[in-house]
Amino acid sequence: MESNQTAKLDKVTEDVLKVIDSYGFKQEGAYNLRLNGMAVCHGDSRHIHIVKKEDKPGIDIHISGEAKDEQVHIPVVMSQEGVDVVYNDFYIEDGADVTIIAGCGIHGEGCSETRHDGIHAFHVGKGCNVKYVENHYAEGNGTGQKVLNPVTKIYVGEDSTFTLETTQIKGVDSTERENYIELADNAKLFVTEKLMTDEGQTAISNMDVELNGENSSARIVSRSVGKGTSRQVFHPRAIGNNRCHAHVQCDSIIMDTAEISSIPEIDAKHVDAQIIHEAAIGRINDEQLVKLRTFGLNEEEAEAVIIESFLK
Amino acid sequence: MESNQTAKLDKVTEDVLKVIDSYGFKQEGAYNLRLNGMAVCHGDSRHIHIVKKEDKPGIDIHISGEAKDEQVHIPVVMSQEGVDVVYNDFYIEDGADVTIIAGCGIHGEGCSETRHDGIHAFHVGKGCNVKYVENHYAEGNGTGQKVLNPVTKIYVGEDSTFTLETTQIKGVDSTERENYIELADNAKLFVTEKLMTDEGQTAISNMDVELNGENSSARIVSRSVGKGTSRQVFHPRAIGNNRCHAHVQCDSIIMDTAEISSIPEIDAKHVDAQIIHEAAIGRINDEQLVKLRTFGLNEEEAEAVIIESFLK
Repeated sequence: MESNQTAKLDKVTEDVLKVIDSYGFKQEGAYNLRLNGMAVCHGDSRHIHIVKKEDKPGIDIHISGEAKDEQVHIPVVMSQEGVDVVYNDFYIEDGADVTIIAGCGIHGEGCSETRHDGIHAFHVGKGCNVKYVENHYAEGNGTGQKVLNPVTKIYVGEDSTFTLETTQIKGVDSTERENYIELADNAKLFVTEKLMTDEGQTAISNMDVELNGENSSARIVSRSVGKGTSRQVFHPRAIGNNRCHAHVQCDSIIMDTAEISSIPEIDAKHVDAQIIHEAAIGRINDEQLVKLRTFGLNEEEAEAVIIESFLK
Repeated sequence: MESNQTAKLDKVTEDVLKVIDSYGFKQEGAYNLRLNGMAVCHGDSRHIHIVKKEDKPGIDIHISGEAKDEQVHIPVVMSQEGVDVVYNDFYIEDGADVTIIAGCGIHGEGCSETRHDGIHAFHVGKGCNVKYVENHYAEGNGTGQKVLNPVTKIYVGEDSTFTLETTQIKGVDSTERENYIELADNAKLFVTEKLMTDEGQTAISNMDVELNGENSSARIVSRSVGKGTSRQVFHPRAIGNNRCHAHVQCDSIIMDTAEISSIPEIDAKHVDAQIIHEAAIGRINDEQLVKLRTFGLNEEEAEAVIIESFLK
């Protein structure tokens, strides 16, 4: 059963959607747009059904094992002040192949807080291929804090691959992310986290990966840039409870008077758990700067190029 | 003023000293042997004076800037049950070049706890070269826990180099180490930590390094082997408060049903702080095992060779 409920969107919403949905948001196929705490439009596709929760704000997204190379878009836009807490649950059947494009954009013009807490749970069956793309962004001249506190729980079934791409583009005053991931036998996890903070912004990123399954594996790459007086704290944790592989890599560029802490934790609780961690924090590469400036770029332009390529 | 108070040592004490003092303990030059909570012999040298504390157990070690390539030996042996807490303070004058050989050996035959807590503080002047070597070891058939909880505070002055070599050889049932190090301008720190646990032993190692000085640097290498059902937790922390370099490397071999956690923390609080961390936990190298076995070694012998070279 396919259902559709479209809506006419204002320019602010359209513009924010362009930034947070890099795959291009359209009111087609499977989608759900949450605007200022309300689902304003949604659509199902043949293999993806979205059902509004009865007991709390949020949706259940049911993805059939028949879904192959399909997309579902569930962006959130907040252009009014206030706090929005939403619970989204994904039920992904054995064999599904799907890309989920989420993200939250705040357009804040007011003087009180605008906050979105997206609490997501992914129940991934066997033999799936799931990609979850999440972009965070805030804009607007309001003095109110623009806050995003996502909580993401991911249960990856046997022989499934889960790819998590999370990016904080800019403008978010405060974020505290909680990620919890469990991997079954032969499950594979790929995480790419990109984060940029500026001015007085703060970002805390916690990620626990439990490698429970035999031959499960995780590859986590985190890249961040801290500017202004911003502060970042990373706490990725890989727990090897079985024969498994994990590789965690955190690289940060520090600028101005920013402060960055990286507190990775690797716990081997099985003789065949192999876990590697690498972290580096440092200033922008001077040699690259000099090289770019010989091409005629000024210092700011050269820095921008280096940061962009670092976060790519 | 040189003073000397020698003593005749029993065989147990002599044997333990051979293990914990790899430089060779002699009742010559500057030394102080603490046996079961009592200083039983000590000597001063021209440039190194040892003074018993009046207010609490322990000694003050005064090292003159005239000391060049000198040694001081301050081993501790416990062959009786009980708890011994001792406070040793080192005052190292500008320009001194000294090697301090400490260490604690427990010979436990009883059924109640034998514990030594050595609380050491190093006040290192400018332009010094200090090496501190500390070996921890326990033996004996007693069922009482053999416990070592050292606390080490090191203040490294301008242009000084401090080398810390700490080794837990074997037999220690429980250890909780606290290290706190501050580095002034151009101060250099080199740390090598080696740790082996077996059976139901537990080891916790915390190390905070505050890189306060301009061009201060730290190089920390930690290598450990966990066997049996033992548990190890490492928490090295490098805090860059100025233009500085730090490199922290933790490698562990896990065997049997041991568990090892590595929780390094790197905090960059200055744009010119460059901090790198690497950690790896894994099983013994299979290729090396196979190679050694083709040379005729059995599995246990091959493992022993690999572990020995890993901890060298």
